Amino acid sequence: MDTGILTDGPERSHRRTGRSRRAGQSRGLEQKPFRQPRMTYRPIEIISADALEDIHNASLTILEEIGIDFMHEEAKAVLKRAGADVEPGSDRVRIDRGLIMQALTTCPPEFTMHARNPAHNVRFGGDWIAFAQMASAPNCSDMDGGRRPGNQQDFRSLVKLAQSFNIIHLTGGYPVEPVDLHASIRHLECLRDFATLTDKVFHVYSLGKERNRDGIEIARIARGVTDEQLERQPSVLSIINSSSPLRLDTPMLQGIIEMSSRNQVIVVTPFTLAGAMAPVTLAGALAQQNAEALAGIAFTQLVRPGAPVVYGGFTSNVDMKSGAPAFGTPEYMKAANVGGQLARRYNLPYRTSNTCAANTLDAQAAYESVFSLWGAIMGGGNLIKHAAGWMEGGLTVSYEKIILDVDLLQMVAEYLEPIVVDTDTLALDAIRDVGPGGHFFGTPHTQARYRDAFYAPLLSDWRNYETWSEAGGPTAYEKAHRLWQEALAQYEPPPLDPAIAEEIDAFVARRIAEGGAPTDF
Amino acid sequence: MDTGILTDGPERSHRRTGRSRRAGQSRGLEQKPFRQPRMTYRPIEIISADALEDIHNASLTILEEIGIDFMHEEAKAVLKRAGADVEPGSDRVRIDRGLIMQALTTCPPEFTMHARNPAHNVRFGGDWIAFAQMASAPNCSDMDGGRRPGNQQDFRSLVKLAQSFNIIHLTGGYPVEPVDLHASIRHLECLRDFATLTDKVFHVYSLGKERNRDGIEIARIARGVTDEQLERQPSVLSIINSSSPLRLDTPMLQGIIEMSSRNQVIVVTPFTLAGAMAPVTLAGALAQQNAEALAGIAFTQLVRPGAPVVYGGFTSNVDMKSGAPAFGTPEYMKAANVGGQLARRYNLPYRTSNTCAANTLDAQAAYESVFSLWGAIMGGGNLIKHAAGWMEGGLTVSYEKIILDVDLLQMVAEYLEPIVVDTDTLALDAIRDVGPGGHFFGTPHTQARYRDAFYAPLLSDWRNYETWSEAGGPTAYEKAHRLWQEALAQYEPPPLDPAIAEEIDAFVARRIAEGGAPTDF
Repeated sequence: MDTGILTDGPERSHRRTGRSRRAGQSRGLEQKPFRQPRMTYRPIEIISADALEDIHNASLTILEEIGIDFMHEEAKAVLKRAGADVEPGSDRVRIDRGLIMQALTTCPPEFTMHARNPAHNVRFGGDWIAFAQMASAPNCSDMDGGRRPGNQQDFRSLVKLAQSFNIIHLTGGYPVEPVDLHASIRHLECLRDFATLTDKVFHVYSLGKERNRDGIEIARIARGVTDEQLERQPSVLSIINSSSPLRLDTPMLQGIIEMSSRNQVIVVTPFTLAGAMAPVTLAGALAQQNAEALAGIAFTQLVRPGAPVVYGGFTSNVDMKSGAPAFGTPEYMKAANVGGQLARRYNLPYRTSNTCAANTLDAQAAYESVFSLWGAIMGGGNLIKHAAGWMEGGLTVSYEKIILDVDLLQMVAEYLEPIVVDTDTLALDAIRDVGPGGHFFGTPHTQARYRDAFYAPLLSDWRNYETWSEAGGPTAYEKAHRLWQEALAQYEPPPLDPAIAEEIDAFVARRIAEGGAPTDF
Repeated sequence: MDTGILTDGPERSHRRTGRSRRAGQSRGLEQKPFRQPRMTYRPIEIISADALEDIHNASLTILEEIGIDFMHEEAKAVLKRAGADVEPGSDRVRIDRGLIMQALTTCPPEFTMHARNPAHNVRFGGDWIAFAQMASAPNCSDMDGGRRPGNQQDFRSLVKLAQSFNIIHLTGGYPVEPVDLHASIRHLECLRDFATLTDKVFHVYSLGKERNRDGIEIARIARGVTDEQLERQPSVLSIINSSSPLRLDTPMLQGIIEMSSRNQVIVVTPFTLAGAMAPVTLAGALAQQNAEALAGIAFTQLVRPGAPVVYGGFTSNVDMKSGAPAFGTPEYMKAANVGGQLARRYNLPYRTSNTCAANTLDAQAAYESVFSLWGAIMGGGNLIKHAAGWMEGGLTVSYEKIILDVDLLQMVAEYLEPIVVDTDTLALDAIRDVGPGGHFFGTPHTQARYRDAFYAPLLSDWRNYETWSEAGGPTAYEKAHRLWQEALAQYEPPPLDPAIAEEIDAFVARRIAEGGAPTDF
């Protein structure tokens, strides 16, 4: 089979199953083991150290002089106790630079997130890279089924795909919003699926403190650990988006309080679209991004010094003709690069994303995504959110795009693998043996290495034009359509202790019986 | 019109024509002026300085101990005189490292290529980037006309497109091989088209010395300069491909002699496909690339010290299942990065390429091309060959791919534009005015800047899904199909002194009457 995803023969399957059982990976997929890529060379510095300081100082001036709205009484009380200037009768909080910079000193530069399968633990910060599946799409789509609002069946299929591909290191939220589940109990059903259909790290939405607490508890049960161990070993993460410009709303601040106080991971990501929620100039949008990020990050440290936190950047531009958000643009790449410089300035892990605005899996979807990855990877991104599946500026998760992105991510990982330069690889003996005018294909040096010498892509069709035409001229989109179905057919749930599964079910049943969580968030 | 390529209204057209006449650019295209991007930050160093020295030393050992075939008597005589070890009765030449490194000392690190329109001169080396149109495809294709062998009409249309887009800085050879022209006079017809349908720098094939001489003479006439001025101001370039492994054939060596002796530009590019014409290991393929490149580059300096020369890298891998060449792969990206490190080690301009292996303008065409550009740009490429139009590993030039690539190249150029960080762009006043919870769209700061704030792509469709669907759900491929036709319809030949046009015609007529050039190359 020339599918890129191979069904193993019996003997091979046996061997692979042994391996995959140990690692808790799906069998039957021809892919490399679960492993985080590392950015082994220096990220791009697209602006000078002076310009970086100008952005840094502008953002501190914003926090000192303009202030930021913390829309939560408890949060304001925490900030006031720490010495911030809370405007009476208002949510406006002004924070001086000394307080911000002092709070940042306790942020851990690197940490590990613990999955229920320890082989799937994820390292954040330093030169580590982690790819998270796309999150929070209201719609999903595939080539046959078309575009449709999210539902539980698609949610589950998409989570299974996240489990199936080793290059997807964690899930980053609901790949699609299952609107057929009532909002009060949706998080319980989804969290159970995250904890059972995958054994990777998962995300908990900050949409009311009950949801944070339920997510933390399900992660604890799934890992079979005590509260104390869970606090020592962060296991869930939550994305905190500021309501740009310069606002942190109640559920987000509750989320920080719930998560950070339990030493779980917060990713603070302002959504600063230049020209809309942020200045039209990149420098201004980045100064505002930085102000909002630093405010949220500092707040995590006021809640609990040392709590793991990630600097998130999501600055892009809008189409100035229509106001539509644009992604994977030159401006997006630049912002992703500068975001990395800012995060490194504060010695924080850096979150960025793999995005596009395309409506179908055409050339645009691919070039916007690869430009996004170029900005993210060269910018030193540690956590790449929305790494697989993102379409339409986030309004749809596409099954085929997941396959395209898996291929792109695997290629990026391969690109980051160091080139081995030694006597063996320099191959002087082989070059001597072949000599001028010869050919290397049949040489022992080639034969001993050719199987694993190069990355074998999932989608790329390298047949010549005639052969490709005779086969019907398939596009990458069509091939991707076949591959996700194969992957889903091969999916096997990762092993789970039945007692733990029972405990999760009991917890979910009890919480559903209690009515779940308030829906007035 | 929402086409990306706007037809100007009368008043605007008048203004733009004035500008474009000065610059000799086609009017009617909504694009930035002709300008070379610059790589303003440090290229990626993907291997260590030690590993780079290991490759360098291995390549010098190859030249010293294994040797390289110079398949031309005059070339061997030049090398012998310089002190190389020419094996009697053989083409094998062994060159010691002292001789190679001595020869390299006279290579100019930067130089200017002179177009007949001085506004289109191109700077090579340093941090300058130049994009050349795709070259040497046997076939061309478009969405309506399908795939067909090259012919003069398509050749001309493609050259007109190279003239039409300011981001294409030069032509790099025949965009398609016009096989309806007899091989003996094909170069004369093509060179006349290059010299008249465009006013940009062009390429001369090294396929027998007559062709080099005819190309140099047509460039001289077109520029209206003397032989002496032409020698002071390099005006044509020729790509020299080694016949890997380790061979330089007769027409290539004649090409170097003809071009370098007249101080015209040579680009030495080994075609080292790892696993086929070079070792399967990247380090070995790069050592061989470097040996072949250094041999050709050193030879240019033996012909004429100081002659302008470019270090070319074209190392990629093959599909080990089929032997088909692969492009835009992780291995290609790595090789492109290392090639740049090698070129910079010798203080030489670096040539790399924008390639893909796709058979149609789908996601694959886009991601392989953007990965190629990622490798090329982050590798510090100065001359990016095949930058617009390349499909199928070079077997076809696609009209639609030219539009896609123009868009990609414009985005890369925009990405490389420095971010301005100053009081105005940091926008503290705008942020203060808008305040928490506001919106920037209508602010004076935004209104004053929004028109030119962001890159406006040719192809990206940023409409929402519903609007896009109602419009028929067009793909980037379909939009590209419309845009090249619009560009071609708007093409105007660049101004040319009638006396010069006559002189070119007379030269071409005379040379055709003489029978053109031998076809036994």
